Amino acid sequence: MLEKIQSPADLKKLSQDQLEEVVVEARQALLEKTSHHGGHNGPNFGVVEMTVALHYVFDSPRDKFIFDVSHQSYVHKMLTGRAQAFLDPDHYDDVSGYTNPRESEHDLFTIGHTSTSLALASGVAKARDLKGQKSNVVAIIGDGSLSGGQAYEGLNQIATTGTNTIVIVNDNDQSIAVNPKGGIYTALRTLRETNGQAQDNLFKALGFDYYYLDKGNDLASLIALFQEVKDSDHPVLLHIHTQKGHGVTFMEENREAFHAGGPFNPETGQYLRGNSGPNYNSITGDFLLKKMKEDPTVIAVNAGTPMFLFSQEQRQEAGQQFVNVGIAEQEAATMSTGLAKNGAKPVWYVASTFMQRTYDQWWHDIALNNQSVTVLVHSASVNAMNDESHLGFFDIPFLSHIPNIVYLAPTNKEEHLAMLDWAIEQKDHPVAIRVPVGPLEETGQPDQTDYSILNKNQVTQEGSQVAIFGLGNFYGLAQEVAKTLEDQHGIKATLVNPKFITGLDKGLLDSLSAKHQLVVTLEDGLLEGGYGQTIASYLGNTDIKVQNYGIDKHFHDRYDRQELMAKNGLSVDTIVKNILQTLAN
Amino acid sequence: MLEKIQSPADLKKLSQDQLEEVVVEARQALLEKTSHHGGHNGPNFGVVEMTVALHYVFDSPRDKFIFDVSHQSYVHKMLTGRAQAFLDPDHYDDVSGYTNPRESEHDLFTIGHTSTSLALASGVAKARDLKGQKSNVVAIIGDGSLSGGQAYEGLNQIATTGTNTIVIVNDNDQSIAVNPKGGIYTALRTLRETNGQAQDNLFKALGFDYYYLDKGNDLASLIALFQEVKDSDHPVLLHIHTQKGHGVTFMEENREAFHAGGPFNPETGQYLRGNSGPNYNSITGDFLLKKMKEDPTVIAVNAGTPMFLFSQEQRQEAGQQFVNVGIAEQEAATMSTGLAKNGAKPVWYVASTFMQRTYDQWWHDIALNNQSVTVLVHSASVNAMNDESHLGFFDIPFLSHIPNIVYLAPTNKEEHLAMLDWAIEQKDHPVAIRVPVGPLEETGQPDQTDYSILNKNQVTQEGSQVAIFGLGNFYGLAQEVAKTLEDQHGIKATLVNPKFITGLDKGLLDSLSAKHQLVVTLEDGLLEGGYGQTIASYLGNTDIKVQNYGIDKHFHDRYDRQELMAKNGLSVDTIVKNILQTLAN
Repeated sequence: MLEKIQSPADLKKLSQDQLEEVVVEARQALLEKTSHHGGHNGPNFGVVEMTVALHYVFDSPRDKFIFDVSHQSYVHKMLTGRAQAFLDPDHYDDVSGYTNPRESEHDLFTIGHTSTSLALASGVAKARDLKGQKSNVVAIIGDGSLSGGQAYEGLNQIATTGTNTIVIVNDNDQSIAVNPKGGIYTALRTLRETNGQAQDNLFKALGFDYYYLDKGNDLASLIALFQEVKDSDHPVLLHIHTQKGHGVTFMEENREAFHAGGPFNPETGQYLRGNSGPNYNSITGDFLLKKMKEDPTVIAVNAGTPMFLFSQEQRQEAGQQFVNVGIAEQEAATMSTGLAKNGAKPVWYVASTFMQRTYDQWWHDIALNNQSVTVLVHSASVNAMNDESHLGFFDIPFLSHIPNIVYLAPTNKEEHLAMLDWAIEQKDHPVAIRVPVGPLEETGQPDQTDYSILNKNQVTQEGSQVAIFGLGNFYGLAQEVAKTLEDQHGIKATLVNPKFITGLDKGLLDSLSAKHQLVVTLEDGLLEGGYGQTIASYLGNTDIKVQNYGIDKHFHDRYDRQELMAKNGLSVDTIVKNILQTLAN
Repeated sequence: MLEKIQSPADLKKLSQDQLEEVVVEARQALLEKTSHHGGHNGPNFGVVEMTVALHYVFDSPRDKFIFDVSHQSYVHKMLTGRAQAFLDPDHYDDVSGYTNPRESEHDLFTIGHTSTSLALASGVAKARDLKGQKSNVVAIIGDGSLSGGQAYEGLNQIATTGTNTIVIVNDNDQSIAVNPKGGIYTALRTLRETNGQAQDNLFKALGFDYYYLDKGNDLASLIALFQEVKDSDHPVLLHIHTQKGHGVTFMEENREAFHAGGPFNPETGQYLRGNSGPNYNSITGDFLLKKMKEDPTVIAVNAGTPMFLFSQEQRQEAGQQFVNVGIAEQEAATMSTGLAKNGAKPVWYVASTFMQRTYDQWWHDIALNNQSVTVLVHSASVNAMNDESHLGFFDIPFLSHIPNIVYLAPTNKEEHLAMLDWAIEQKDHPVAIRVPVGPLEETGQPDQTDYSILNKNQVTQEGSQVAIFGLGNFYGLAQEVAKTLEDQHGIKATLVNPKFITGLDKGLLDSLSAKHQLVVTLEDGLLEGGYGQTIASYLGNTDIKVQNYGIDKHFHDRYDRQELMAKNGLSVDTIVKNILQTLAN
């Protein structure tokens, strides 16, 4: 059946029984693909019926669907000409894990961060009104995404515009991890428990025409509901109770594990990649938990993705010293400012791509108030997530030019933990630490550096002619370049582990002129606006030449990591060649 | 009476009659100071009674007050040892216009952006709990600030934590401008109209113990209410209806004009600085309104501060083609993405300092989706607002390194309008324009540049030895430097108007090596992470030297503009001297 659906028009011709068959086939395809290929499994299993009903009732692309985060758009893709990418393993990679306008006119936006769908819908609807057109604008947002403040701003604007927009709250009582208790989650739970009849209805208060559907995995009920509200002339909110992972017992029972991941055994739900031993996430979690036990004011703050830091057991163990604010990064950043101001020691663990959501909270709250918040920035690397919506190599340009912040780039386990310990215990600076990405490197020697002496770089090898600054994750590359220069060309380079991203070791840089013609900087991040360019500027009026290496400014999508590195000259051969060329002049 | 109040302890000794006298005196002092000195007038007049009652009932600094935006903290300052700064004109500048921990232990945070108080309170309260202490945490937030999504995130977290936090919603039915209709404003209005008894109570839905007080300018009622909730063991929300500008007829009647400004005639309410003729804001508004009349899909989007672009009459005239989303910059940015995607032509007018709140909306929504949104960035200059919480010189580092964005720096009226017209009509790029700051410069010649040829710099004078790149507002400074070099030192410099911030004219830069030893960049923004450093990096491996000029990385507070420029070497004399020195080597 699925193979024959080339577009939603084909779906509309089917009988109710056939539609039910589509649901079954879609779920089989999902299980087959996600178990072999990985992906966002649970969220998609929960919305199979909803997606079939949406395409059956509405008329995409005239009617506009906007999926929040859009990781739950797999079935939507199946029904809009892309079934092959879910049925044929050779074509699994034909589609991205998110909506993508380059794939289909049924996908309006590339979306990978949460809570934006309502604002997008408010604009799409307003443009429709300005053009004097009629169509339905439908935003599908999960309860997890509803914790982001931007979703609330979108609700306000949709209500204010006052024309057709249909907001579907896909309530599965589970964000990525377990939802916090309280606030919006209390409001949603009370509505679920009262079948939508609770006395205080947040959505009605904001001006929405509110409908509740408890049987959110029942196709017929969904179709009836959508038919009822289609072509409404005012904003409608459909609160639909679904089950994450619906139809697969092990997913229904372990909703956090089956948010995303894979491959897994489709019979047992056992993930195939086992525990691979300690890594930078696990050693950080272990270290933090130990700190917490020693000091009740140490507190780990998290915005919806605690699993990178703590297992469910560790979260239990942390108790009141662990806070998950929901997918609400601004709250995490600014709450941390308040925590530090009142004498606690907050540590926020956040992915580079999601930290983007807090530029102003960093600037206006943490940094301007100069509070000793510790932020562990993980997945900050060209070697982290590689979808264009989740890139992890922009944090140096956006974070490091804000005053007062100390941004550190450790190169191994001992440095990382020494920096973390210093950051937690000091009271003078906001400190961000770029958690290393890659295999765990251990020196076996405790790092005794006094990090309160800011911007002091470590010269790990004294040499001449060329000085190589290998920042954080790319220190290893700098070592390799230095080794090749020495082994193959007899040039002993000066090798520097800068450690500090947010300031220059001017004494060191000034001293280089005596014996060096060239400074090379290597950073695991965007070239433009990055660390290296501050060195190029500082040395711009001197005789020393500077070569900066980093990633070019582009939304690289599902890139091959080695290829992208090579394209940007980030290989030992290219760097050595360029050094030799400059030294020869 | 006011003069004798050295701290809140002194206030607590007063009788009810004496407290009423403090209210009268505080209002007199406010009128005297704001009419002569300027400042946020209306907001402070509205909260005189509330502030007196707060300090009478609670025990600051043990109890913690957090004022959202904090421009309504003048009376708080009077009651916490800083009355002289409101009574003695010689001391008017002793205090900032916002809470400031450097002034008093009663001020917890430096705050100037909206909607952060609840997140700060959530952290302060949680730290109190971790330490096992008891005290009241009180956040005072206006209805305008409640439109920001971060406020909603804060409400959620406060409700989730579940311990003492008292949220005061100071509802004066007016943001900076008139509030939008719908959403949260509908919710608040319904509650006001039902004396807090509306059926659907948003705050109760989120888990708050809710109290409504209609007589928000009645001291006795306020004291009674605060006494009732003091030391509560759970989150409380006090919805208090106040009147902006209360007690001064002309302020009560013209609430937008009396949000902030001055000086004004204290008898008539006439602002003393008259209309000074056309400026960059007014010509932009006029131009846009004309575009709108020609094209119904052109739409001006604004986040709470429309007065910089349009007068109240112009907003009326724009009708459905003007949207004020409330103080919700994320909504403005992402809604614009939706507008452009569905064929409208959105133009968002925003101050540099507030645009900070949308880094991720720029990155993930506008830029990643490459939508032709036009953003006019105003007050982006060292010569704009000079309070540390409202700095306007960070936009180049945070915005210009995001892919796909075209960020333009016009140097005069004709360029600005030509760029704006091009930006609105093209479909290929998100375009930001750095609206010039300073007196209106007119060439009298229409700008015929084809801006679709990206990153093409304009060489306005061909010379040799040194090439000076004067970006946007600092092009005039570059001209002066070139003139001095020629007139006094016989050096004819190459002079460049780069126009494009987001990309380099590599052809031009490559060609410079033939006749130039030095490139100088001047930018009205942060040196670090700025435009000039991209040039220093590009030329780093060549023989050309580079000098970058801009502002140093620091939260400069209430700075003297000339002094800060001089401190950063941004004077003709210094730049000429440095150029001559390098050319002589």
